[in-house]
This record gives sequence, C-alpha cells and structure tokens, in this order.
Amino acid sequence: MGNELLIGKTLNTNAQWLARRATNLGLNVKRTTVVGDEVDEIAAAVKEAVERRPKFIIVTGGLGPTFDDKTLEGVAAALGTELEENEEALNMVRKRYASYVAEGRMEKFEMTPHRVKMARIPRGSSPLPNPVGTAPGVLVKQGDVSLVMLPGVPQEMAEIFDESVSGLLRGIAGDATFYEASLDVSGIPESELAPTIESVMHDNPYVYIKSHPKAAERVPHLELHFSTMSKDSKMARQRLGRAILQISETIKEKGGKVRPVKG
Amino acid sequence: MGNELLIGKTLNTNAQWLARRATNLGLNVKRTTVVGDEVDEIAAAVKEAVERRPKFIIVTGGLGPTFDDKTLEGVAAALGTELEENEEALNMVRKRYASYVAEGRMEKFEMTPHRVKMARIPRGSSPLPNPVGTAPGVLVKQGDVSLVMLPGVPQEMAEIFDESVSGLLRGIAGDATFYEASLDVSGIPESELAPTIESVMHDNPYVYIKSHPKAAERVPHLELHFSTMSKDSKMARQRLGRAILQISETIKEKGGKVRPVKG
Repeated sequence: MGNELLIGKTLNTNAQWLARRATNLGLNVKRTTVVGDEVDEIAAAVKEAVERRPKFIIVTGGLGPTFDDKTLEGVAAALGTELEENEEALNMVRKRYASYVAEGRMEKFEMTPHRVKMARIPRGSSPLPNPVGTAPGVLVKQGDVSLVMLPGVPQEMAEIFDESVSGLLRGIAGDATFYEASLDVSGIPESELAPTIESVMHDNPYVYIKSHPKAAERVPHLELHFSTMSKDSKMARQRLGRAILQISETIKEKGGKVRPVKG
Repeated sequence: MGNELLIGKTLNTNAQWLARRATNLGLNVKRTTVVGDEVDEIAAAVKEAVERRPKFIIVTGGLGPTFDDKTLEGVAAALGTELEENEEALNMVRKRYASYVAEGRMEKFEMTPHRVKMARIPRGSSPLPNPVGTAPGVLVKQGDVSLVMLPGVPQEMAEIFDESVSGLLRGIAGDATFYEASLDVSGIPESELAPTIESVMHDNPYVYIKSHPKAAERVPHLELHFSTMSKDSKMARQRLGRAILQISETIKEKGGKVRPVKG
C-alpha cells in the first residue's frame, strides 16, 4: 500500500518478504496488489480480496499517525464496519511512548489525537503488539477470511509478523513446506529448451519448473528454478533431484552447460 | 506477473521502473497487481483492470516461448477474443533468430511451435518490436483503454517501453510533469510532526507531502517527501520550495534537525 510505491520512489520489498515467508510456511500466495493512500482505493482493493475468499489477507502500510495513514479506515469500509478506540490498543500505544520517555528518547508525551488515531481499529478486531514501533498491528476475521494489517516500516512489519502472524499462517498451511533448487544453464536458447521443460514436468508431476532468461547476452543464458511442496523433506529432495538430473542430461545432450546455483 | 514474484524469489523491480517512468511522464499510477502464471488468474486481473476504465494498462512478463508464458492467452480471454498468428509479429521473431545465426550465436534455426507461439497475439492487436530479445511486445485497444504487454526480462521491457510505449503515454498525459524533493528530518517523532504536515499541505494545496519513518532508532528519524504535478517547471519548484521552507521552520522551532536529501 502507498503512493511511494505507485510513483516508483520505493521498491516493494515488503511484498517480497511477506511472499517469501508465507511460501516457506507452506502457503500458496495468489495475488499482491498495491493501491494509493485513499480510503476508496484501499476499501475497493480489500473488498475485492475478501470476495475472492482466500484464507488470509495481509495488508501493509498506512497504520501510522499521519492524515494519509488510511488503511484501517479503508478496511473498516470494506468490511461494512467502523473504527472505534480500542482499549488494549490504546494501552499498547501509551506504553510505547512511556518507554520512550523512560529511555530518555522523549522528554514527555501526551496522547494527542494523532497518537490516539493509531488505537482506532475496526470494530471486532484485535491489536497485535508492535515490539519496535508505536502503531500496533491489527487482526480481524470476516467469515472464514482472516485479515492482518501490519505497518509499512519493514522492521516493524517483520517483527509483528514473526511474533503474532507466522503462527496463524502455519496453522492454516498444515504440514507442507516449500522446497526449491536452481540450475544455471548456458548455451541453449529458452525456445529450444521449452519442449524439454514440458516433458520433464510431465514426468515429474509434483515439481514446478520455471525458466528465467538472463539479460540479453551473446551466449544464451538462463536460470531454471525447480520447486515442490511436501510434508516430507526427503521425498521433496528426491523429487527435485530426479527432475534436475533428467533435465541436466538433456541439456548436455543438446550441447548446453549446466551447473547448480548455490541457495 | 509471475510465480517468481508470488513465491518471493524475485523482487518486483519492473513495477517500480514502470511506475517511475509513467509518473515522470505525468501519469497518475493507480494500482499494480501481481498474479501467477495461470490463464484464469491473468484473465481475471486484466478484466478487473479494464473495468476500472483507466487510460492505460501495462502488463509485464509471460510473453516467452515456454508453456507457462500465458499472458497473451489471459489477455485474449479478458477481452473476449482469441489468439491468432500475426504476420508482422512472425517476421519480427524470424528476423531476430536470423540475426542470431548471422552473428554466429546459433548455427541454424527453425520456426518451431514454441517460437511461433511468440507471434500468436490477440486478434486486433499489433506487435511492438523488441530490440534486444525474441518476444515482441503487444499493443491492443479495448474502447478507450490501451493495453500494452511487455516481456518480463527487465532489459527487454525497458527497451520496448522507451522505443514504443513512452510516446503513447506522453500523448495521454498532456504537458504536466512530476516534480519532487525530500527532506531528512531527525529529532521529532512522526506523531508530533503529523499536525504540521497537515497544516502545511492545507497552505500548499498543490503539494503532496508524505512522511516515511526510518527503521526504529534511538533518535526519531524520517524522510519527508514533497511532490507536485505541473506544466511549468518554475512554478513547480516554487511550490515545492515554499512548502519546504514552511515546514523546515516549524521543525526547527520544535527542536528538530532538517537537511535536504540529494536526489
């Protein structure tokens, strides 16, 4: 979320970080969306996401004290509810500023309207403690869909995720884990390798293979990425190993070079 | 577009690059979306985007020769049309491989089904030459909405954009250009600065100000980003300058430190 992404000022590292974490927890990330800091835009994007009935929606950014931190207003509108001052959230914000005073980072503090704002969360939701910043995260359920709102500051997002969100995702995901490996392939154009990828995927139904061409060079050069989800790490590695072996042999037959990419 | 983004393998630098370019050309980027390499997912995202009636939609990734390069199939489904072999696109692909042979990068080439695939584009669309790769870009209109499909390889995307797309965007945008400046502010928490930002924005209606808190540190630290769209560079700089001056004075009065950020 946020204008800084839509003007290309900021690279969306939060989306990558969250996608990585969720995938490693065994979830299947279906979509990511970025909208600007406007209530209608946020509400529309959240409503559309809820209507796709995923198990989980994670929203980042827009929880802070400034006028354009509008995420919770947008989420409340999407869920057909309203913001209300939450006592638990208010205590979290108050304790955080009190700790700043105790540490000598601030002389004194007042619970100004801009600070109280961070404790105004959608009716029926719960605050999630922020170990490194002032704005709490927020968890709310709409039917079978859980929504989590996290701050946009990467460190705050990460800490709340690891402390309060990853356990929830693990519960949803079940026991399966994501496994992957990569090969660096040179000397064969992607278009020549395309039918081989298809036939190796056909022979290895649990392995997904995706080719990533490198920037134009004189010698064709690409990365082949292999992934699988499994409850059993030994089986996962066997599946990946078998697909890698099979494709490597074909690449060498065709005169290409292949080497593993260190993870 | 693409699974590599949804598993967090790849950082979405294409979205940032395109957002930056479009903003600098005077456009207002409203939304970015990432979906996986599935026809239904692509078709749904494109259809929803078209229904929001923007002037322009840019899609990247999924134009190559492999089975999971499904963007054009998804776009055709979203537009209610079909893919067909396009003679001009076919010539582009053929010429590209012929040039590889001429340069000694390949011994010979055939127009295999996987290579012909790159020239199968939605009915009514036009191919855009790719100066550095094999898959052409594609331009198609649906009513007042223009859709451009570009390869996911960053260098190919950028070259086609600069050669064939930026002129179209410039035509849509009119004469306005994006101007920006940043201040580095320390010693004042964001929550204390929030009311100041609001009042300076109120006094400077053409300037958008956004605060970006830095990672938690002992001393509060944030970036204030100022931006405006204008046809007149002198007026734009005056507007930004006035807002910056006004906010800098208040920050100093409150005991904070402020310095310009070099662009």
